[in-house]
Amino acid sequence: MNLSRRQILGLGAGLLADGQVFADQDRNSPVSQSGQRAESVMEMPFERQDPVRFGIIGMGKRGSLMLDLLLAVPRARVTAVCDIVPEKTSQARDRIVKAGQPAPAIFARGDEDFHNLVRRDDLDFVYIATPWDWHVPMALASMTAGKHSGVEVPAATTIEDCWKLVNTSERTRRHCMIMENCCYGANELLVLNMVRAGIFGELIYGEAAYLHDLRAELFSDEGAGLWRRFPHMKRDGNLYPTHGLGPVANYMGINRGDRFVYLVSMSSMQKGLEAYRAAHIPRDSAKWKEKYVCGDVNTSLIKTAGGRTILLQHNVANARPYSRLNMVQGVKGLFLDYPPRIYIEGDQTEEEFTDLTRYRDQYMHPLWREHGEAARQAGGHGGMDYLMLWRLVQCIREGLPPDMDVYDAASWSVPGPLSEASVGSGSGPARFPDFTRGRWNHRKGTAI
Amino acid sequence: MNLSRRQILGLGAGLLADGQVFADQDRNSPVSQSGQRAESVMEMPFERQDPVRFGIIGMGKRGSLMLDLLLAVPRARVTAVCDIVPEKTSQARDRIVKAGQPAPAIFARGDEDFHNLVRRDDLDFVYIATPWDWHVPMALASMTAGKHSGVEVPAATTIEDCWKLVNTSERTRRHCMIMENCCYGANELLVLNMVRAGIFGELIYGEAAYLHDLRAELFSDEGAGLWRRFPHMKRDGNLYPTHGLGPVANYMGINRGDRFVYLVSMSSMQKGLEAYRAAHIPRDSAKWKEKYVCGDVNTSLIKTAGGRTILLQHNVANARPYSRLNMVQGVKGLFLDYPPRIYIEGDQTEEEFTDLTRYRDQYMHPLWREHGEAARQAGGHGGMDYLMLWRLVQCIREGLPPDMDVYDAASWSVPGPLSEASVGSGSGPARFPDFTRGRWNHRKGTAI
Repeated sequence: MNLSRRQILGLGAGLLADGQVFADQDRNSPVSQSGQRAESVMEMPFERQDPVRFGIIGMGKRGSLMLDLLLAVPRARVTAVCDIVPEKTSQARDRIVKAGQPAPAIFARGDEDFHNLVRRDDLDFVYIATPWDWHVPMALASMTAGKHSGVEVPAATTIEDCWKLVNTSERTRRHCMIMENCCYGANELLVLNMVRAGIFGELIYGEAAYLHDLRAELFSDEGAGLWRRFPHMKRDGNLYPTHGLGPVANYMGINRGDRFVYLVSMSSMQKGLEAYRAAHIPRDSAKWKEKYVCGDVNTSLIKTAGGRTILLQHNVANARPYSRLNMVQGVKGLFLDYPPRIYIEGDQTEEEFTDLTRYRDQYMHPLWREHGEAARQAGGHGGMDYLMLWRLVQCIREGLPPDMDVYDAASWSVPGPLSEASVGSGSGPARFPDFTRGRWNHRKGTAI
Repeated sequence: MNLSRRQILGLGAGLLADGQVFADQDRNSPVSQSGQRAESVMEMPFERQDPVRFGIIGMGKRGSLMLDLLLAVPRARVTAVCDIVPEKTSQARDRIVKAGQPAPAIFARGDEDFHNLVRRDDLDFVYIATPWDWHVPMALASMTAGKHSGVEVPAATTIEDCWKLVNTSERTRRHCMIMENCCYGANELLVLNMVRAGIFGELIYGEAAYLHDLRAELFSDEGAGLWRRFPHMKRDGNLYPTHGLGPVANYMGINRGDRFVYLVSMSSMQKGLEAYRAAHIPRDSAKWKEKYVCGDVNTSLIKTAGGRTILLQHNVANARPYSRLNMVQGVKGLFLDYPPRIYIEGDQTEEEFTDLTRYRDQYMHPLWREHGEAARQAGGHGGMDYLMLWRLVQCIREGLPPDMDVYDAASWSVPGPLSEASVGSGSGPARFPDFTRGRWNHRKGTAI
């Protein structure tokens, strides 16, 4: 590792202590890669469209669910679908027709056929639900072809690709949203609304995680098993940061008055995937040639410009029940999820947690209050998926800015590569690029 | 900050990645401060004594409780007590006499009268229950006077003082225990016993904390309010690491086959004490001249030589219910406390936590099985305090080594100053001294 004096002294990072050493390269740059300064897309509204016409790239498990939910959202149309497996696009067409919409255009001629989808002129928004490595090229192609895009999570897996999304969004004046469904969860939006009402006092600390025993899925011979195990052979860090981090970023107003400044990250040893393979995979399987390098438990600590801290964790390799942690501590109290519980100074007589009963009615987020019943009926992780899509359609129909823009996409995704850099340097601090180019403090308030 | 090339390259830390930068000075040294190599006291047994004669320094809230519990432990005698407040020693004498023991020697003539206590020849063990800054001078005096000693937590607050305890224990051949009561908690010893039985599989990760809303106590004009607020004006880090860390260290066999190698630490902003003062302290109080520098939430990540990781947290300044986290994740399952719940692969049909019912009987620790009823009757944090003392008396009566020795005292306490060093350097890695001088891998098994 080649530490320049500039890095060692942390020059240009006035908020940090002297002696700060960054494991990442400083890639902050006020100009886009083309060398031309482009205007920010922060708060740039969508052009009004009604109905809203969607193309979907990726008709696997996630894309299929999104299709079904979009077909349930009023004024949403699905005019084009793409997948490398022709049967999946045929099934999608059948479901679209059955829902009473015209048969969509189909793109199923190999890896690059998505380029033909994004060039169509009957599309307002391209929804990208493909394996991680395809998110960026597909989003770039969509924006370059003049289409707004939304990518599944994480939006990107390298710092360079995060910048490409930002630069391309600014150059093309097209949005690149991060489709972070967990931001629309009932508990997450309730807590966001309570934060907005000042219930917790000033926020000090939060916890965000993806703790999900994926061992069986990772070793499957279909679905995510076809690709999602491979990053565990190449990367040691947090592979999937946004489900937990997006909601906590919204609580704290990240890119809306505060921003992530640096993180440190530490991985445990790798044991879980090897142990699962030993117990479940026949010895003649090619999987026995694989070597897993991603530590089972990756833990990162993030510092914000406002002095807040966030615990960010990833574990998909050990036996445990699901959790995103989803915790926020303010001066006056805290909320913890899994199970949801809360303590607010003065509200309880005992120094003990209580459930959400007394808060749920009063602080229910308007999206859940007005569309919760439809969301629960439509389904998709308890309704959050439907609400995310309903809200996206609303923003486009009414000409609003998206709830989560390309700066959020980059900021929430970049802990992936930053955690790798930190782990690789023995937990040294890794600095977040300021994707907003200094505008993180211009916009205030909460995202949704 | 002056980073030498040796520090930047992390020479001598073979387990760490190249490029590791340490925020601490490398104070590892194979020789004691006197320049002479002393033998390890690891596994050194106590000389058998029966009855066991105690002197207690510090008759405040903690020392008074310890006195009452010692008077309930069979074969324990309290022959001397010391405090700077004469009334407290008189009250102690009355309780000792009331319990049927001879009147103790009393030392109440100022700050330095403890030197006269430790010089007595009717003492086997000096129990030190004083404010943090007095732990080390009193333990050093006790050992130098030929007495085994036990200190309340943390044992020391600087790296240098941790080494002084180790060096003095080795030179004098007297033990310096850390009286970490939480190691004897019912849940902690249950989990320790389950770890020993392999229920969790190989351990990967743990969580340890002291999350305790102490605001009222810190601002009180008596008790801990007389001294415990002041470190918040001088130190930014984890002021109180051992209640959570001791039990987790025992689960992981720290200094018994594994050891702490380095940590990184991050503090949030300070808000809690200022907000409490604003709400509760009259504006003419001298407390308004104080400036608090300790971040409300301090979070550290510890890496062990075996590749395990530990989250270590401290928050005494925000509104929240009490927790020590007390979590351990193995390949096959995990335990979390507050409330206690567990998930072991194969034991449950649903991927959900269950309570401890099915495990408590089978894996109850022998100490609780045999003495739990007496412990609960005697009291002291649910019985853990009594059990700690009962077990200490047992070790001395039977000529066993102490459960927790000076290496544990130093290893569990040093995250205090190491977290300060890391926070001060912008979360750079800070290396643990190897207080065992390479013997951490010689002893195996669990502590208690």
